[in-house]
Amino acid sequence: MEKKISSAVIKRLPRYYRYLSELLDKGIDKISSQELSRRMHVTASQIRQDFNNFGGFGQQGYGYNVEVLRNEIGRILGLDKQHFVIIIGAGNLGQALANYGGFEKRGFLISGIFDSNPDKVGKTVGENTVMDMSELSSFVKGHTVDIAALTIPKSAAAGVAATLMDMGVRAFWNFAATDLNLPDNAAVENVHLAESLMSLSYNMINLSENTSEDI
Amino acid sequence: MEKKISSAVIKRLPRYYRYLSELLDKGIDKISSQELSRRMHVTASQIRQDFNNFGGFGQQGYGYNVEVLRNEIGRILGLDKQHFVIIIGAGNLGQALANYGGFEKRGFLISGIFDSNPDKVGKTVGENTVMDMSELSSFVKGHTVDIAALTIPKSAAAGVAATLMDMGVRAFWNFAATDLNLPDNAAVENVHLAESLMSLSYNMINLSENTSEDI
Repeated sequence: MEKKISSAVIKRLPRYYRYLSELLDKGIDKISSQELSRRMHVTASQIRQDFNNFGGFGQQGYGYNVEVLRNEIGRILGLDKQHFVIIIGAGNLGQALANYGGFEKRGFLISGIFDSNPDKVGKTVGENTVMDMSELSSFVKGHTVDIAALTIPKSAAAGVAATLMDMGVRAFWNFAATDLNLPDNAAVENVHLAESLMSLSYNMINLSENTSEDI
Repeated sequence: MEKKISSAVIKRLPRYYRYLSELLDKGIDKISSQELSRRMHVTASQIRQDFNNFGGFGQQGYGYNVEVLRNEIGRILGLDKQHFVIIIGAGNLGQALANYGGFEKRGFLISGIFDSNPDKVGKTVGENTVMDMSELSSFVKGHTVDIAALTIPKSAAAGVAATLMDMGVRAFWNFAATDLNLPDNAAVENVHLAESLMSLSYNMINLSENTSEDI
């Protein structure tokens, strides 16, 4: 197994993947760490350090082979395999995720969407029909479920996550404004939109202060 | 002006704000750093270090006054003021943001939503009517716009952001899968959903590997 990689490196890997995919789309098949550094606005040293966590990806004299590097990073991220995602909560955000086609091309297939609101059950969202929460248990038994996206109110999120853990689901994409506090054998990725907006607010205010002090 | 605070601290402030708000909702008006540490699963030392960036918030013998601390952190985050947010892109995600009521109670008011697609213009989304992109310039001239949320394809995002910069907008909540590369007098907060999902995928795979090696 690869050695323990810091979460900061893991957070950066998808960005490398994105840049390398864009280079491939442009027909660029070789790139030096200097050129990648220039495009990504990170130092070449940072890139080399990040890549060294995975053996360095064998840069040769002329640089990296873009396709090989992109596929290798994709493999590390698990993008070489199909992952089945269910969405819990068919509100605005759950529907937006279900309707977004971009996840599927990376191998994340939305295979089910659930809600407890009878007005939503039976509705078509993307390529799915909203199922009732009472059907969740039998669905998880009968289908592979790799990831559960939680787009439900924070009061319900931890309970639903614990129930899904009992059913064997181990990865949670949590959009609820709460911490799930799951055991170590679960993977959780939080998307706290209100908190992201607050960080932006802070940075915006401090821009203004800088500007006024500069005058 | 406060000294330069690290972005890691800024990212943690909204979480403190959330926990303190929840304590207030529960009627808890005093808390020690030890108890806050236990609830938030961070060390008391981390909490004290974070708070020391802002003068420490005057913990007394019995701990922090929850309401004072919450309001002080809120003030630092700019939550004591109203911020006007426009949404560029009335697709699924833009509509989900416009329909979500939770931002308004934190002082972020969605004051306009724009799209270039004639099928979307004129549609009611939340409390707004989708405006045509051609109306953006006059809208920004006639209204305060603090933040622009970009829920548009990546091919359009950098151009729209640059246009908005020219109009005087300085804060961007960017949901497009691209880096905006704006000058230093702009604040950008990225929400890259596909990348978040890739990080989750990595963490999920490495959970599985750990588990199988433990057997």
